[in-house]
Amino acid sequence: MASRDLTIAVDAMGGDDAPRMVVRGAEMARRRFPDMRFLMFGDENRIRPLLKRRRKLTDITDITHTEDVIKSGMSVSEALRKGRGSSMQLAINAVREGHAAGVVSAGNTGALMAMAKLTLRTLPGIDRPAIAGIFPTMRGETVMLDLGANLECQTRNLVQFCIMGDIFARTVLGNVNPSCGLLNVGSEEMKGHAEIREAASHLRELSGSLNFYGFIEGNDIAAGTTDVVISDGFSGNIALKAIEGTSHLVTRFLGEAFRSSIMSRLGYVLLRRGLKKMRARIDPRRYNGAIFLGLTGIAVKSHGGTDAFGFSNAIGVAADMAAQDVNGKITDGLKSFGHYRPAPVAAEAAAS
Amino acid sequence: MASRDLTIAVDAMGGDDAPRMVVRGAEMARRRFPDMRFLMFGDENRIRPLLKRRRKLTDITDITHTEDVIKSGMSVSEALRKGRGSSMQLAINAVREGHAAGVVSAGNTGALMAMAKLTLRTLPGIDRPAIAGIFPTMRGETVMLDLGANLECQTRNLVQFCIMGDIFARTVLGNVNPSCGLLNVGSEEMKGHAEIREAASHLRELSGSLNFYGFIEGNDIAAGTTDVVISDGFSGNIALKAIEGTSHLVTRFLGEAFRSSIMSRLGYVLLRRGLKKMRARIDPRRYNGAIFLGLTGIAVKSHGGTDAFGFSNAIGVAADMAAQDVNGKITDGLKSFGHYRPAPVAAEAAAS
Repeated sequence: MASRDLTIAVDAMGGDDAPRMVVRGAEMARRRFPDMRFLMFGDENRIRPLLKRRRKLTDITDITHTEDVIKSGMSVSEALRKGRGSSMQLAINAVREGHAAGVVSAGNTGALMAMAKLTLRTLPGIDRPAIAGIFPTMRGETVMLDLGANLECQTRNLVQFCIMGDIFARTVLGNVNPSCGLLNVGSEEMKGHAEIREAASHLRELSGSLNFYGFIEGNDIAAGTTDVVISDGFSGNIALKAIEGTSHLVTRFLGEAFRSSIMSRLGYVLLRRGLKKMRARIDPRRYNGAIFLGLTGIAVKSHGGTDAFGFSNAIGVAADMAAQDVNGKITDGLKSFGHYRPAPVAAEAAAS
Repeated sequence: MASRDLTIAVDAMGGDDAPRMVVRGAEMARRRFPDMRFLMFGDENRIRPLLKRRRKLTDITDITHTEDVIKSGMSVSEALRKGRGSSMQLAINAVREGHAAGVVSAGNTGALMAMAKLTLRTLPGIDRPAIAGIFPTMRGETVMLDLGANLECQTRNLVQFCIMGDIFARTVLGNVNPSCGLLNVGSEEMKGHAEIREAASHLRELSGSLNFYGFIEGNDIAAGTTDVVISDGFSGNIALKAIEGTSHLVTRFLGEAFRSSIMSRLGYVLLRRGLKKMRARIDPRRYNGAIFLGLTGIAVKSHGGTDAFGFSNAIGVAADMAAQDVNGKITDGLKSFGHYRPAPVAAEAAAS
């Protein structure tokens, strides 16, 4: 059973450089997790040659052949209609059927989210799954959700995200008593729209079981003010990408500064080692892996343009979640937060 | 008349280091704008000594004494109730009464926004003012709005922001045919919530008079994909602060890299000049000044913690807007976009 717990279903055909990057990523992940096994889904004729000189990986990998692939440009509805036999769908099915603890794909995000949601369904007590991501901060690492699964969020969704984020931070990030912040446009109680203010008042009631910090602002993400950042999917997605874009801008301006004169070039040579460490701290490949939280199985989306190292980290997140039984703990957690009883969905839909 | 056009009303008491930073900032701005005049509002006993050795500044400055100050921690309602004689309110009144072309304050943002809105009112054709800011990007500079004045935006608001942003980019940033992007979670037409999709379809209809690019994502802000970025105030504020926080994080990690070894320190010395240029490119003081767009007078909010250089740039934005008659051009622009007729406010309020 211990070995089955670390079996990861991999969509071998998702990502710009698939299946090569996928197989190489699996090889890197295997070295970090000795008990790991893989179920790979995709074109066997393309996967098999890549496994050729990797005997240890071959030993722990089962390939299920399919020629169907969800293309990156496909709409969600087209993917759902035509993708039943696709590598992505088959990999998700393996999780539902209990053959794998989690699924990792670098393919079409919308399709993966929709297929995972339909196939794996939400955990009891969770109305909607969220996309979570890990960010480097001044104080270490922060998990943030939702990063784009739910453009509009009800109070109940935000509260549930917070409970899931708390458990993720405890288990995967190893925080003993993670603090949770609600992303807003100011820290005062009266700031923000109705849903976020109501969510804050619910979360304050849960204090004792949950370390709710209060409202935080956009700059608190990088500052690491809280270990968990909760947001609706619209603002969360914009914040995530604004952060990526800014990081890219500063790095590029820096590169230009390094090349601006002979003196600068010389300085850069001396600095190279120090800069390497700094780059590693904010390396997007280290933080690769968008986690679909709130489903009955583990599903992690890798960036489509990542390399083997990045993909191995997405596998690593799935493996950590499996080893820590994050989903079991979320289910237990929701029970222990029993005094937060979500109102029936019908009533909420009528009110909105 | 030419000299009155560049008269700026200054709230001398707003900001962490006021009135010292304010007077010094005015001195720096004066050197850049030979026709500038100042109306300063605040405690004359504190302002007068600061003007002592600045004869040229003294010659172009009229002080109106008041001891009332809007404190940074005051709520908007308290500020409105008690602040009628405050330096902030008197400075805004000077704009309404035509004594100054614009007002600049580094004080309480919420109070300034509320007072400016009530005192100056919105331009004809504009339902709600927005906060705009200028950002450094890979391709130059971008103006983004709304940065927090309107947490929820109707379609009409987003369309009006776009028209105002277009005119701001043409006049203050000097773009001949600025492109406008609508901040969303993806670039496809079906992405986002109803208001943003409707705004996009309105803006597409205006093409010909307006260079509407379509939807953009968070990373497009720093990439400079468009010259104008339009957002609701909630996401816009979060994006703005996420950008500031990330920029701060990368700079800090960089500083640690520079200090990590003797070699690094040596490298830093050689790089200093190149880095200085790079820092200047993203210096927040250069981009200081949140612009309240859509009011009948010019109002610019300086960061409260800025220094004289930063404050002089906030004055500079107000002066540029006055010299370019941005508000006159917005009014004309709204007329020329006549085929976009905003629905009556009452009908929209009933629908929402």
